[in-house]
Amino acid sequence: MTTVPAKGSEKAWGGRFAAAPDERSEAYTASIRFDVRMVWQDIRGSIAHVRMLGRQGVIPVEDAAVIEAGLWSVWDEASDGSLQFTIKDEDVHTGVERRLRELIGPVQGKLHTARSRNDQVSTDTRLWTKGALLAISGGVLNLMDALLEVAANHFETVMPGYTHTQRAQPIVLAHHLLAYVSMFQRDTDRLMDAYRRVDRMTLGAGALAGVTYPVDRESVAADLGFAGITANSLDAVSDRDFVLDTMFACSTIAVHISRLSEELVMWSSGEFKFVEFSDAFATGSSIMPQKKNPDVAELSRGKSGRVFGHLMGTLAMLKGLPLTYNSDMQEDKEALFDTVDTVLAVLGVYPSAIRTLTFKKQRMAEAAIADFSLATDAADLLARKGIAFRDAHEVIGRLVRTCIEQEKTFSDLTDDEWAAVHEVFAAQKPPLTALESVNARDVPGGTAVKQVRAAHATAVDTVTGLRSWQRDSQALLDSVMRRDSQGSAA
Amino acid sequence: MTTVPAKGSEKAWGGRFAAAPDERSEAYTASIRFDVRMVWQDIRGSIAHVRMLGRQGVIPVEDAAVIEAGLWSVWDEASDGSLQFTIKDEDVHTGVERRLRELIGPVQGKLHTARSRNDQVSTDTRLWTKGALLAISGGVLNLMDALLEVAANHFETVMPGYTHTQRAQPIVLAHHLLAYVSMFQRDTDRLMDAYRRVDRMTLGAGALAGVTYPVDRESVAADLGFAGITANSLDAVSDRDFVLDTMFACSTIAVHISRLSEELVMWSSGEFKFVEFSDAFATGSSIMPQKKNPDVAELSRGKSGRVFGHLMGTLAMLKGLPLTYNSDMQEDKEALFDTVDTVLAVLGVYPSAIRTLTFKKQRMAEAAIADFSLATDAADLLARKGIAFRDAHEVIGRLVRTCIEQEKTFSDLTDDEWAAVHEVFAAQKPPLTALESVNARDVPGGTAVKQVRAAHATAVDTVTGLRSWQRDSQALLDSVMRRDSQGSAA
Amino acid sequence: MTTVPAKGSEKAWGGRFAAAPDERSEAYTASIRFDVRMVWQDIRGSIAHVRMLGRQGVIPVEDAAVIEAGLWSVWDEASDGSLQFTIKDEDVHTGVERRLRELIGPVQGKLHTARSRNDQVSTDTRLWTKGALLAISGGVLNLMDALLEVAANHFETVMPGYTHTQRAQPIVLAHHLLAYVSMFQRDTDRLMDAYRRVDRMTLGAGALAGVTYPVDRESVAADLGFAGITANSLDAVSDRDFVLDTMFACSTIAVHISRLSEELVMWSSGEFKFVEFSDAFATGSSIMPQKKNPDVAELSRGKSGRVFGHLMGTLAMLKGLPLTYNSDMQEDKEALFDTVDTVLAVLGVYPSAIRTLTFKKQRMAEAAIADFSLATDAADLLARKGIAFRDAHEVIGRLVRTCIEQEKTFSDLTDDEWAAVHEVFAAQKPPLTALESVNARDVPGGTAVKQVRAAHATAVDTVTGLRSWQRDSQALLDSVMRRDSQGSAA
Amino acid sequence: MTTVPAKGSEKAWGGRFAAAPDERSEAYTASIRFDVRMVWQDIRGSIAHVRMLGRQGVIPVEDAAVIEAGLWSVWDEASDGSLQFTIKDEDVHTGVERRLRELIGPVQGKLHTARSRNDQVSTDTRLWTKGALLAISGGVLNLMDALLEVAANHFETVMPGYTHTQRAQPIVLAHHLLAYVSMFQRDTDRLMDAYRRVDRMTLGAGALAGVTYPVDRESVAADLGFAGITANSLDAVSDRDFVLDTMFACSTIAVHISRLSEELVMWSSGEFKFVEFSDAFATGSSIMPQKKNPDVAELSRGKSGRVFGHLMGTLAMLKGLPLTYNSDMQEDKEALFDTVDTVLAVLGVYPSAIRTLTFKKQRMAEAAIADFSLATDAADLLARKGIAFRDAHEVIGRLVRTCIEQEKTFSDLTDDEWAAVHEVFAAQKPPLTALESVNARDVPGGTAVKQVRAAHATAVDTVTGLRSWQRDSQALLDSVMRRDSQGSAA
Repeated sequence: MTTVPAKGSEKAWGGRFAAAPDERSEAYTASIRFDVRMVWQDIRGSIAHVRMLGRQGVIPVEDAAVIEAGLWSVWDEASDGSLQFTIKDEDVHTGVERRLRELIGPVQGKLHTARSRNDQVSTDTRLWTKGALLAISGGVLNLMDALLEVAANHFETVMPGYTHTQRAQPIVLAHHLLAYVSMFQRDTDRLMDAYRRVDRMTLGAGALAGVTYPVDRESVAADLGFAGITANSLDAVSDRDFVLDTMFACSTIAVHISRLSEELVMWSSGEFKFVEFSDAFATGSSIMPQKKNPDVAELSRGKSGRVFGHLMGTLAMLKGLPLTYNSDMQEDKEALFDTVDTVLAVLGVYPSAIRTLTFKKQRMAEAAIADFSLATDAADLLARKGIAFRDAHEVIGRLVRTCIEQEKTFSDLTDDEWAAVHEVFAAQKPPLTALESVNARDVPGGTAVKQVRAAHATAVDTVTGLRSWQRDSQALLDSVMRRDSQGSAA
Repeated sequence: MTTVPAKGSEKAWGGRFAAAPDERSEAYTASIRFDVRMVWQDIRGSIAHVRMLGRQGVIPVEDAAVIEAGLWSVWDEASDGSLQFTIKDEDVHTGVERRLRELIGPVQGKLHTARSRNDQVSTDTRLWTKGALLAISGGVLNLMDALLEVAANHFETVMPGYTHTQRAQPIVLAHHLLAYVSMFQRDTDRLMDAYRRVDRMTLGAGALAGVTYPVDRESVAADLGFAGITANSLDAVSDRDFVLDTMFACSTIAVHISRLSEELVMWSSGEFKFVEFSDAFATGSSIMPQKKNPDVAELSRGKSGRVFGHLMGTLAMLKGLPLTYNSDMQEDKEALFDTVDTVLAVLGVYPSAIRTLTFKKQRMAEAAIADFSLATDAADLLARKGIAFRDAHEVIGRLVRTCIEQEKTFSDLTDDEWAAVHEVFAAQKPPLTALESVNARDVPGGTAVKQVRAAHATAVDTVTGLRSWQRDSQALLDSVMRRDSQGSAA
Repeated sequence: MTTVPAKGSEKAWGGRFAAAPDERSEAYTASIRFDVRMVWQDIRGSIAHVRMLGRQGVIPVEDAAVIEAGLWSVWDEASDGSLQFTIKDEDVHTGVERRLRELIGPVQGKLHTARSRNDQVSTDTRLWTKGALLAISGGVLNLMDALLEVAANHFETVMPGYTHTQRAQPIVLAHHLLAYVSMFQRDTDRLMDAYRRVDRMTLGAGALAGVTYPVDRESVAADLGFAGITANSLDAVSDRDFVLDTMFACSTIAVHISRLSEELVMWSSGEFKFVEFSDAFATGSSIMPQKKNPDVAELSRGKSGRVFGHLMGTLAMLKGLPLTYNSDMQEDKEALFDTVDTVLAVLGVYPSAIRTLTFKKQRMAEAAIADFSLATDAADLLARKGIAFRDAHEVIGRLVRTCIEQEKTFSDLTDDEWAAVHEVFAAQKPPLTALESVNARDVPGGTAVKQVRAAHATAVDTVTGLRSWQRDSQALLDSVMRRDSQGSAA
Repeated sequence: MTTVPAKGSEKAWGGRFAAAPDERSEAYTASIRFDVRMVWQDIRGSIAHVRMLGRQGVIPVEDAAVIEAGLWSVWDEASDGSLQFTIKDEDVHTGVERRLRELIGPVQGKLHTARSRNDQVSTDTRLWTKGALLAISGGVLNLMDALLEVAANHFETVMPGYTHTQRAQPIVLAHHLLAYVSMFQRDTDRLMDAYRRVDRMTLGAGALAGVTYPVDRESVAADLGFAGITANSLDAVSDRDFVLDTMFACSTIAVHISRLSEELVMWSSGEFKFVEFSDAFATGSSIMPQKKNPDVAELSRGKSGRVFGHLMGTLAMLKGLPLTYNSDMQEDKEALFDTVDTVLAVLGVYPSAIRTLTFKKQRMAEAAIADFSLATDAADLLARKGIAFRDAHEVIGRLVRTCIEQEKTFSDLTDDEWAAVHEVFAAQKPPLTALESVNARDVPGGTAVKQVRAAHATAVDTVTGLRSWQRDSQALLDSVMRRDSQGSAA
């Protein structure tokens, strides 16, 4: 793109202006550099609008047909890459209209009837956001699939469960991976909530107050596949809640990815050695020949900050803005786009990185029972025999202290030593293997293999259901955003 | 509260420890200072837990009964203010158990069977959050009521609608107030989403892996009025999404309040003079005798930053934490509490402040048509007569420029001057009053009086529906959180 | 750039790797897309490094000369735009080395002796940041110049001073503009602090632990114009405080710009009408022909959110990272670049926008004494005559209330009415013009014309001093970053 | 405190008001709940102000003396805890004046001459912030002392240095600890910068425009120990940069603490076992008897989010506020106080926690050379023999891969095998002990023991210098803030 200065009168709004814009100011205020990404949404929105203008008799149907045909030509130019914008075009809306006028002449001027850039940019951005939310949902579901797939191989792979990064109690790996499936399920829930709220069309709000023409807003919404229309024109042009909703849903995804990444980084360390990234998903060092770095996990962890930052920046931007539209709100788009791009990039690489991990079962199994991770089981045994748990805890706590001082593990203790700890242990020794311990936690949500298998099956069903929602919504949106679309059949 | 140092062995976890905690460290890590707010939730959660332990035969029913009775005694002490905690108590969970032991002796030790502070704190916080979300929902609905009430008096009060803080087109005040009703309706939607997600009980997750006793998690959930149980024990103790959900819902409320507040501050200025706060909701100056400051609006605008900050801080806190529970997460509560307190304080004062505003209709009416706010109407008239809108815009833009140069308004123009602008105006002059202009925007969501009345009626119905949800949910929660509650009947 | 997959062994670190990188992972982890901006710093840093390697005998001087010459060729290719990178190049450091090898063959391999990408990226980024801080300082000084220039025309232009957006006391416009000069002076102070801290060279830290060659770090620092070297190799490669310092300095600039912008937006409103933007720095509406929007001010206000967001995101990214380098830190650059670009864009357009403002002195003067803005002066007169100020405040407060009820201003009051208010006023009436009031505030920092003229003169001197620092630092950096530079003479 | 409603006329600003404040609104807008912390600063500021009023003849010297004596009485009541405030008092400034009037009668009314709460609150907060910055500086220096003390015992304690949480090259523990000393040194630098900027007195700015009395601002500044006065009255009452400066300095401290904490948490894990917290600085589990949790480190890591959040919230709060004072700014204090309290709490517990750590030297030494951490040394040897480093890297990278496949370490390789890797190794084998490797990095800032000892000595000197600044500044402030203080002698 090149920067060509324009006189005020060349602008869509130039009539009132005596002097041409300052070139630097023009470049500063133009959004075409980034809002060009919404060119498809903009054209498609204009098509729905002009069809309705024709249907309602606001402009002659023949004019509407000419304009629609011209818009599809612009669409084709966008498709084949021949469509060019410059800073003069200010924004994608003006750019498309400029090109349309070049193609079909002055009748283009009728397109902007009963519409402002304020309601137009809102509808364009909502359409774009709907697509983004579906893409992210698809990505999250892919990641859930990968986690479920790997989990299915590790129902009996024991490992330490941690609290405070300290070995706490043995668990199975599948249970650990399913914890993330639970998190991503909530994220999908949030994405669906955001989708439901963004799914309202704003055209007809005009600049701020509604329009003076007999427009049919519901039919435009149907043509564009929206579930309905917005209720208040002032709110329609000044609302960016849907941007915040999207950013927040991305932020919780980012939190969850950052936690998973932290674990993969730690587990890849020489000290843990629980897991090894495939060579294809790791990088090396330019100076240290032995290094294999969990780059994908680190970078994904780091990208969470960027996502939070966009949310925070957008909240601050919106704070204290009077109604209705203010140019500050032009700042919403780059932050939104980068948020979505970032999360999609993470979700694009993560499933394969997960699927190609190598888990070191032997290391994990050894660690699972080290450091007295079975102490709770011993205390529980006492409690089940009628000792108050608090007292049982005290007994085993002292035993642990003694073992540490004597550099022993529970497995080193003789029957007599056990009996000396508590008479209960004379009759029955506590669990001394990880699998015994794991299977003792046989409650809904617990790590017993049986429970984990059941939870896995439920999760697979849930993902299937969510996938179905995602596919249906995507199909509807695709039917709208396709060349020669007649809009949603819904 | 006084800080009394305790030996390690006095702690619930002291058995393994040889040395007493450092006094400073003890005070640093204790959460009793703030989590004491959850004392009711903690006692009630323990009651549900111990009832279930009795029912399931994990402990003798008689012991369960003694413990429950003791817990209600602690409840009574909390009610009458006689319950005292110290830093020694570490957190509210330990504090309640310590007091219980004082009251009922060693049988108290059985209460902690099949439970960890990790699942306990999660259930307590979720219970607290449910109450908070309902309180905030109630507050938002009160504010919507106030806006609707004031709007009902101003269906025909014309004022300027603004874009870019520039007068743009006339609107009616009711339409403006309804824009905020739309915003708060979305906020209620978010609060309900958050409520749905927090409404899962975590007890039975134990420290992280589930428990080794035959607990009945579903019955505990029912007793406490939860809609269901969590699916994964690791996730159950490490999930704080519900805190983020609550903070985010509060953040969008804060954005909306900040926008309304900005407007009220501007409208109260000597330059706008659209509105005057009641003396009861304004403050003066210690030095300038004439001042009347819109303090409530300013402070509410400023408090949005605090709410965003808590969200941001909590996102940063959670970032990169490995599973499962880490002490970092103890930081969630003060931020959550202050977020909720802040939003409730704002919502507590705002409805009355709104109801007692005096609107200066004369000033608003004058401003509504000043600065050529009817220019769009004139262009629209041309467009309706077949001129392409872009050209019509150009014609009127030039007219505005001429008028400014000649220091005239549209109302100053003679019939001949109008005719000279465009032949269309020879036959028909454009609207020259605000109400004409307003009523021309007769589309769904538009500012025409008829449309605004309809939108108002719809909004009243919507609030009624939301209020019903809020009341039913509150009633359920109240039935759980009441002395001698037998839990939810649901 | 095209994405061409590379086998692991084509990488700078490939020896240890059996499998080629996954194409998606490769694109995900590559930073070349954005760190290409540091190509000049990277080449220049390599030149200083290789010169030192030659001088110290780490590699033969002839090899060093060949490598330096080759690097200048890459510099020339970067200058004329012929240098091309691909995703295969991973980052700008690898890309430059790859191109260098193409140009000079295997001797290139000696360049990476005694250096890692970890210390290299730090030095490159520090060099880039030094330039950025100077550019921003220059921009801030330009804005201060513009404010001082406009202020010089308005020493006696009276206007209302505001607290709580309520007219409070009359001031002169120059005083108001000088308030911003004070803010930007503090910003310059912060920029200089940031510059002082970033001005340490990190090469020689190697990957993390220092290098095993007899390098001369001080001479490399001198060659690159750094004031010194870092003290600890681990800190050198893991420190990003300088990024935070830069972002924070930009954040306070953004706060100040946002406040100025808010005022310009309000002052441009139809209600205030204190100021009008030049047509060259305003935009219109596509639908409302009369609109003239203060776009530059709004956008600049909105961009503050973006700047805060990057700071917040980077803080969150760095939180909890273990030493030393982690790939998360790769996320620092896009945020840093965008922060700097954003602030430079604002500073690029603002000075001209300020210089071309038209102030409506008549409106401002009328507003200056409206709404009893002279009430404090009246109370002060009483206090000077021995009435306790608190009582004087009460007297005048009641007078204001009476005037409001009777719809009078102070100027409407007769001598008798003044005398009835307080006997003091029988002898002497309080100031009733804005200039009298203004000039009564004749204390250092006050709004009396005399004081404002003095403050203006002081500010001009201050800016001159700061400009001199900025120019000297820029000259030093330019001498380093110039083709065939022999580095700093300092 | 109890909430007692007051009629408007009981307020310092009540004269103009017809109706009493709404009770809820009054509680909402009152700041006394938290600004009571500044009671000392408020009284002391008033004393300096009234002394000057007397000296300048603005009020009779006898009145000034009575008022000063009365203020010291209020000081005494604050000291012995008998001073009580209520919501009626609105803020600490009003509360102190109310109590003063009770003590000395109507002459108190003269204190508020030539002063507003706007300049008063600024000076109070600046005084408070000065103390806070010194306290934090002291805390940071204490932590640096602890790190230096521990480092002095570990000049030859080898351990792995990490990049990407992967073992990279051996280092010594003292070098690692000194990296944090470097970070905290930069933090101290930032604290000193913040101190320099806050050290300006604002009294005399009045409400916003300066005062109409012949005040001597410089003498008040001297009395209160400020280095100078502010230059612009509007800026003086609307500037909160000093709050942001303080919060930012605290944020980088928090980043550094979070990194150190992350490492201590990881190092305490069963997998690393590099370090063990003293029992006095760890906590246990209520359910798992064996657990010993690094609670202090986790909590400190988590508290970073809170600190970032306050910074972000305050930036958002200030964004877009018009000049001068707005009530939004009342929100600065709780965030500032909590930021300072949080950082002081962390710094209060950390030095002892560091001093009482037990390092497991054996584990660290074993880990130092595991995972081919000496590979760089081998490549460096080749490079020193004239092989281009890139090629040397490739040779050793392949060797590592072979070793991994054959499950060998470098130490397992025979002389013949080394010779087969490269002919250079036939003559000289690469370093095979950690200490050899460490000492090879003998460059300024490197990990060679000699270098680390030198760096330690330099750091000790630096801390001594900083401590001297901290003590001198504290002594000056103490001389001002002491009963019967005559102010700074400076």
